[in-house]
Amino acid sequence: MKDVAAHARVGLKTVSRVVNGEEGVAPDTRLRVCASIDALGFRRNDGARLLRQGRTASIGVVLEDLADPFYAPLVRAVEEEARAHGALLINGSSAEDPERERELVLALCARRVDGLVVVPAGDDHRYLRPEMDAGVATVFVDRSPGLLDADVVLSDNAGGAREGTAHLIAHGHRRIAFLGDRPDIQTAAERLRGYRAAMADAGLPVDPAWVSLGPTEPARVRAEAERILTGHAPVTAFLAGNNRVTVSLVRVLAGRPRPTALVGFDDFELADLLSPPVTVVAQDPALLGGTAAGMLFRRLAGAAGAPRRVTLPTRLLARGSGELPPAQG
Amino acid sequence: MKDVAAHARVGLKTVSRVVNGEEGVAPDTRLRVCASIDALGFRRNDGARLLRQGRTASIGVVLEDLADPFYAPLVRAVEEEARAHGALLINGSSAEDPERERELVLALCARRVDGLVVVPAGDDHRYLRPEMDAGVATVFVDRSPGLLDADVVLSDNAGGAREGTAHLIAHGHRRIAFLGDRPDIQTAAERLRGYRAAMADAGLPVDPAWVSLGPTEPARVRAEAERILTGHAPVTAFLAGNNRVTVSLVRVLAGRPRPTALVGFDDFELADLLSPPVTVVAQDPALLGGTAAGMLFRRLAGAAGAPRRVTLPTRLLARGSGELPPAQG
Repeated sequence: MKDVAAHARVGLKTVSRVVNGEEGVAPDTRLRVCASIDALGFRRNDGARLLRQGRTASIGVVLEDLADPFYAPLVRAVEEEARAHGALLINGSSAEDPERERELVLALCARRVDGLVVVPAGDDHRYLRPEMDAGVATVFVDRSPGLLDADVVLSDNAGGAREGTAHLIAHGHRRIAFLGDRPDIQTAAERLRGYRAAMADAGLPVDPAWVSLGPTEPARVRAEAERILTGHAPVTAFLAGNNRVTVSLVRVLAGRPRPTALVGFDDFELADLLSPPVTVVAQDPALLGGTAAGMLFRRLAGAAGAPRRVTLPTRLLARGSGELPPAQG
Repeated sequence: MKDVAAHARVGLKTVSRVVNGEEGVAPDTRLRVCASIDALGFRRNDGARLLRQGRTASIGVVLEDLADPFYAPLVRAVEEEARAHGALLINGSSAEDPERERELVLALCARRVDGLVVVPAGDDHRYLRPEMDAGVATVFVDRSPGLLDADVVLSDNAGGAREGTAHLIAHGHRRIAFLGDRPDIQTAAERLRGYRAAMADAGLPVDPAWVSLGPTEPARVRAEAERILTGHAPVTAFLAGNNRVTVSLVRVLAGRPRPTALVGFDDFELADLLSPPVTVVAQDPALLGGTAAGMLFRRLAGAAGAPRRVTLPTRLLARGSGELPPAQG
């Protein structure tokens, strides 16, 4: 209440009067206090449930990076669904920082969004439980929440990586590297699991030097690729863990005399016009976003039942780079 | 007030009591009415200015398409600036529809954003005047507002297109086509102006068959490119009006036996890895967004003075496709 008073530039007593419905407050002051209560997300605990019944026709979306070409069509699909329901989007990027994610999500709840679509960065989402109990519909997408049972829409990350790796093995490769995102990111860990499963299926050992997980900055990807290609056990093929890694790898491989096979995870624009055209395991980000938003609005319309988990299949698009034979050693 | 009553599920008399600060309303009801007033953007006219003094720490962004790779880094830059000021983003896509833009902008104002960054779709923005007078800081970016004097950050669209066209002329081309976005889109019109200026500078006539403005859907671009390349006066070079057109043109030209020169407006990922690498007139979308957001927060911090107009230069990146000589006819 102190924050509300400071925000509305009135005394504590005035805030208390407004909240308790007492008289003696000028109309403009009362409205200003209401606005501040809203802006700061202040709610009397016993009033929270009730307030929730007033819908604000807005949906919060929290994801890693608005500018990532994988997330742009996902958000756009959520927006289209929201628009069909007359709701606005409130957006924010977590930059893969769990603390920033938590801040953003709670700030959105304080603005009383009706629902949330979250690409989780952290691995502990218990902080959302009180908000969900108070009526904020929440659907996770792309990754599962941690320590919280909630609706979630995923791609089959392990299955897709397994198929991509098996495709390289089927084209004669035995020494295959996996270059992916940070190991604490769920999709990166799942794709690594799929890669390992395919190698095990074929009875192939995995040299620890072939596996590299970490930030997807071009400089790191370049350095790791060079290390893997010139080390004691050079590979003849790469499985790239996401679109950022694939794009950096395309640049590295374009500058080398000997062709190296490549299967990327995630499709990207112009992949088919590169030389060689890039074979990918494609997700459908628009379908991920649209499915999540559809679930959210069904919950808002009153759909009850236990949390649902939907897994969407991936698709291998063979274009050339994943069908190159192993270069002679 | 009727809408507020329906939204809060109370009688009209109750809403009137809350707004006028009368007694006899239960605290929970009062709060619910406040929430509905807020959700619906209802404000008593004489209270509007006052309410505006309570900041909500949120910024609205309205642009054409969140999923367009040109706008993603622009929005991300606005978000970073907003985050530095502790503000959240509320986003929406206008899909180039002036009516949808107006709806979105007014919905954001009803949610009492402190400020707006708008990529305008329409050509009449007088509807924003009352909101700006009531204190909503507004900066336009990428295109100028219509019939409204306001802060705006632009790229030098005419200058960039003129430079790109002059570059093709300097490499021996005399028959050059301009294939761009819809003529009612300001940047498309400006780029056409730059193209015409460069042709006039060189004393070259422009055959009407060489100019095509319209939607940037791949099918239209493909059809128009084929028409221009196979018509009575085939060209030897293209200036592409934006990144969507360039990408479609790259596909068309890749399938033809005779090389055709190409300069694209807007840079795009992997342009340098295509064959031939694509020469572009590059804008800096992150700088556009960052500059606009910086202006917005300076206004919110109290910066007075007449509306400012900032024009950022473009940069010609010669990579190969724009340096191809004219094919023999």
